[in-house]
Amino acid sequence: MGRKYAVLGVGHVGSTVAFALVTKGDADELVLIDKDEKKARAEQLDLQDATARLETRPKIKVQDYHELKDTDILFVTAGNILALKNQTGNNRWAEFNDTREIVKDIAPKIKASGFHGVMIVTMNPCDAIAQYLQKEIGLPQSQVMATGTFLDTARMQRVVAEQFYVDPKNVTGYVYGEHGNSQFIAWSTVKVNGLDLLPLAKKKNLPLSKLEEHVKAGGWDVYAGKGYTSYAIATCAIKLSRAVLDDAHLMCPCSYYNQKYDSYVGQPAIIGKNGVEEVVDVPLTAEEKAKLANSASTIKEKFATL
Amino acid sequence: MGRKYAVLGVGHVGSTVAFALVTKGDADELVLIDKDEKKARAEQLDLQDATARLETRPKIKVQDYHELKDTDILFVTAGNILALKNQTGNNRWAEFNDTREIVKDIAPKIKASGFHGVMIVTMNPCDAIAQYLQKEIGLPQSQVMATGTFLDTARMQRVVAEQFYVDPKNVTGYVYGEHGNSQFIAWSTVKVNGLDLLPLAKKKNLPLSKLEEHVKAGGWDVYAGKGYTSYAIATCAIKLSRAVLDDAHLMCPCSYYNQKYDSYVGQPAIIGKNGVEEVVDVPLTAEEKAKLANSASTIKEKFATL
Amino acid sequence: MGRKYAVLGVGHVGSTVAFALVTKGDADELVLIDKDEKKARAEQLDLQDATARLETRPKIKVQDYHELKDTDILFVTAGNILALKNQTGNNRWAEFNDTREIVKDIAPKIKASGFHGVMIVTMNPCDAIAQYLQKEIGLPQSQVMATGTFLDTARMQRVVAEQFYVDPKNVTGYVYGEHGNSQFIAWSTVKVNGLDLLPLAKKKNLPLSKLEEHVKAGGWDVYAGKGYTSYAIATCAIKLSRAVLDDAHLMCPCSYYNQKYDSYVGQPAIIGKNGVEEVVDVPLTAEEKAKLANSASTIKEKFATL
Amino acid sequence: MGRKYAVLGVGHVGSTVAFALVTKGDADELVLIDKDEKKARAEQLDLQDATARLETRPKIKVQDYHELKDTDILFVTAGNILALKNQTGNNRWAEFNDTREIVKDIAPKIKASGFHGVMIVTMNPCDAIAQYLQKEIGLPQSQVMATGTFLDTARMQRVVAEQFYVDPKNVTGYVYGEHGNSQFIAWSTVKVNGLDLLPLAKKKNLPLSKLEEHVKAGGWDVYAGKGYTSYAIATCAIKLSRAVLDDAHLMCPCSYYNQKYDSYVGQPAIIGKNGVEEVVDVPLTAEEKAKLANSASTIKEKFATL
Repeated sequence: MGRKYAVLGVGHVGSTVAFALVTKGDADELVLIDKDEKKARAEQLDLQDATARLETRPKIKVQDYHELKDTDILFVTAGNILALKNQTGNNRWAEFNDTREIVKDIAPKIKASGFHGVMIVTMNPCDAIAQYLQKEIGLPQSQVMATGTFLDTARMQRVVAEQFYVDPKNVTGYVYGEHGNSQFIAWSTVKVNGLDLLPLAKKKNLPLSKLEEHVKAGGWDVYAGKGYTSYAIATCAIKLSRAVLDDAHLMCPCSYYNQKYDSYVGQPAIIGKNGVEEVVDVPLTAEEKAKLANSASTIKEKFATL
Repeated sequence: MGRKYAVLGVGHVGSTVAFALVTKGDADELVLIDKDEKKARAEQLDLQDATARLETRPKIKVQDYHELKDTDILFVTAGNILALKNQTGNNRWAEFNDTREIVKDIAPKIKASGFHGVMIVTMNPCDAIAQYLQKEIGLPQSQVMATGTFLDTARMQRVVAEQFYVDPKNVTGYVYGEHGNSQFIAWSTVKVNGLDLLPLAKKKNLPLSKLEEHVKAGGWDVYAGKGYTSYAIATCAIKLSRAVLDDAHLMCPCSYYNQKYDSYVGQPAIIGKNGVEEVVDVPLTAEEKAKLANSASTIKEKFATL
Repeated sequence: MGRKYAVLGVGHVGSTVAFALVTKGDADELVLIDKDEKKARAEQLDLQDATARLETRPKIKVQDYHELKDTDILFVTAGNILALKNQTGNNRWAEFNDTREIVKDIAPKIKASGFHGVMIVTMNPCDAIAQYLQKEIGLPQSQVMATGTFLDTARMQRVVAEQFYVDPKNVTGYVYGEHGNSQFIAWSTVKVNGLDLLPLAKKKNLPLSKLEEHVKAGGWDVYAGKGYTSYAIATCAIKLSRAVLDDAHLMCPCSYYNQKYDSYVGQPAIIGKNGVEEVVDVPLTAEEKAKLANSASTIKEKFATL
Repeated sequence: MGRKYAVLGVGHVGSTVAFALVTKGDADELVLIDKDEKKARAEQLDLQDATARLETRPKIKVQDYHELKDTDILFVTAGNILALKNQTGNNRWAEFNDTREIVKDIAPKIKASGFHGVMIVTMNPCDAIAQYLQKEIGLPQSQVMATGTFLDTARMQRVVAEQFYVDPKNVTGYVYGEHGNSQFIAWSTVKVNGLDLLPLAKKKNLPLSKLEEHVKAGGWDVYAGKGYTSYAIATCAIKLSRAVLDDAHLMCPCSYYNQKYDSYVGQPAIIGKNGVEEVVDVPLTAEEKAKLANSASTIKEKFATL
């Protein structure tokens, strides 16, 4: 009965997801799990303290993997943002040494729980982690996705929109590939106000490669200022979850298994009650196709080391 | 036109307020100010990245005190949670050495901006800080309130509700006094399911003093687990702000100037477009009255040192 | 997966319930059933046309009783508002001749569907209709409630609040009895701003019997101006449904079976996932108790004629 | 302070707009005006009765044109749906005999009020009525728009989406022209899942002219089943209003003055705080251009008779 969500890893992203679901009245039931039990209980308490001031009162539970058995949506948001501190350069694979161990720990627990809903992964490197979880847990591929380039696409929409002083929702098109350095904007797919971007950009002398750098750096700019990113990524994850619950068949670029490359990779997909219902084959230029193949193989390589 | 909010201090509480206003579509315009400009810009960016995935698109601005001129609601949420680390025992006055300096810095800037809306303070120690800001800025008292015991009352509602397995909204009654150690639950005002709590508690052998400890410790339990508190306090602040914008005349216990004690102190008040429209004189027992006087004088003392 | 609602009878109340669930993003799945199939399809179409402009996309289905099998919440909102036109005086029993036939038609269909969720009845006379549906369908009593005096209590809160220029949410207390002429305000339970109403009313010379008339007439005033009532009743029904979905254990006066009177009757109840989890025995004066007994027997009498 | 809306004409559309603004917590202040004062008061009362059960409490006022002076958004939703009953064929101009008289009555009253916000017209025939109101009241053109083909575009999105089993939000593109019989779908602009519709339609043998009939008939199908349309049109009007309040620069096809045709006509526009900030010149085929010119001249002709 109702909507049951779980959040595995209540760090900045996970707790923001939990807060948004509670404050917007989206959740009827919410399970919080973290390797730091005190952290999970603190978030539970902070959210429960809020319910006297909110219209609704979701049930909030903690630390019980058994609850996943009938959970509709599982957000996997664990990570170790501190791992990024010690790296040189910006690379989400820097979290890998930690997240690798985390997923090896949680995958069997999720499997044992009997979870059979839809899993949405935000952990970094999210493409490889999602693929690993899918394999280990044995869920149908459709039921395991990562936010992937859904966030990067949102950043692309913001960056392009700023150039034209319009709402990011006026900008359509997709970022493909890894949620990481090998990602790319498929400029041929981008439109603003219903108009193809490329000729507009030429007319306005927009430096596309610079814009693309801004998009790729978007997360790092936020990270540099606040030490982590949380609001946009949590919003993207929740958007995907609602498309699942509503069986909306909403098109969202996200990370999902692509048979051609035998790898998870960010690409436009149709999201419904089974998770990814379909991948959409949007026409790309030859150069874009090459970039996609390259990005997918980067992910595949890293995945092999898991 | 529309709702214009500002958040001064985008730490854990301030950024949560900002995120909630954006994600729920409450804000039309939002100004973020922080002494750490990179932090303010990072929060702006993270929120703007989210707007491609949200239904609405509030304007988000940063670091401009001039924007306060026509701001409806100003949340003052600065603080230094780290200050609490070095103290022994749990005491919000431990933040005082830092927050004292902060408010001395921001008060003249707010004054110079021409701000004439309603100010909602969550900084600790919030009673004294609110009073200081009111005096320094010269706004009418009604327009400067602190969340005060609105949060403690929410915690009381949760703690009592847990004993009866009911929604915290079934629990009415008030926590009075300082948002700090000298606060107290006015048990004579508390009802659960429309029934007086005191006889029920006697019948169930509820240890009231223990429950009161839980309430007082509520914030510290959250703090211990996550290093700060954010969701409940932000939710309380937003609740007050909406009562102002709607001119709702909603009754909320919060910190406001009480002439009898010549001090800000947490007490039930009617919130409307002018901020605190009226204080409500709920009958208290003699013991409760004494506790209130004592708590108010504690605040007054500390205020004198500002 | 998710929240599944059904609305049986998409007249003014039913279609308003449907619209609110869709526009607020509450529903994941929504089933509309009406004896007028064209009406149901028109409402479906009008709501589906809206989804291109809303953030979410609930699935909206029509005319299929089989869908009730796994429905969480069933709103029974059929009726014939026109029946009220030909009566003299204001009496919800005037709808009875029509609604009697309607429930005799729908009860076996609901039963056959295998519905086992919670049923919320707004049809008039709602107390008797709810009891009839519970008996005929054979659901546990807890799972069948009527909005009953939840709406009348909301009206009481508004009417009292207007006298004190405050938010209706500052007013607590209950209207008991029939959602009809024999209902009464239990004035001894009413508080405004946390203060007992009766002494305040004396001091302000408030004509309580006149206020009570206003409350009772509230629906008729709306009816006289717009030909039906819809927004408040739909809002009450939805509020109850959310308390069920969240298992909130929220206290709401509503119509439910009272063993003492062997009848459904409006009284404060705790609403959770099983529907009415518990009835709360709020202390009443002797006069109020007599009024409640009288109102219950009025309902019982009419029920006998079903 | 806050968001102030007014609704002129609280029939099915106007009251639905009011209810949605209240139930979603969008409005801080709401003014209802109708030539039938009892109707306006009944809607006010029905909405106020709901506020005891809602999280917020907007102020709801009635019948006072003076309130328009500082109103942000004015919805003009008057009409006489009954006028459509006596016509043969489906034609929104059938309402014209009545709405003509209505606007002649209300225009001077709006003007006298000093209203200087943004006006959103849903009255039929909406293109001509909006133009008339703009001229008579003397507001800048940008501040007067009609929902126009925003609703027809939503219907097109639904109709196309149904063919592909996807969310209507996956469908982009525009309906141009009159909110009436001379409107047309600019098929060359339509995409589904990011792919051009025309080749897909050819492959799937979709009968485009039939789909276009469905879109054009959409409103009439709803009308036939429920006697009016309300939910989708109200949702469109509210969507426009929020884009204004947020200064979102959101692209929405709506009816606005087009200099080329010297007429209001449905076309893609950028909506911001001044209303229509800009018209977007999306490339059309020669045939589409001719249809637009034709539709605009139809509107212009009718406008001349006002």
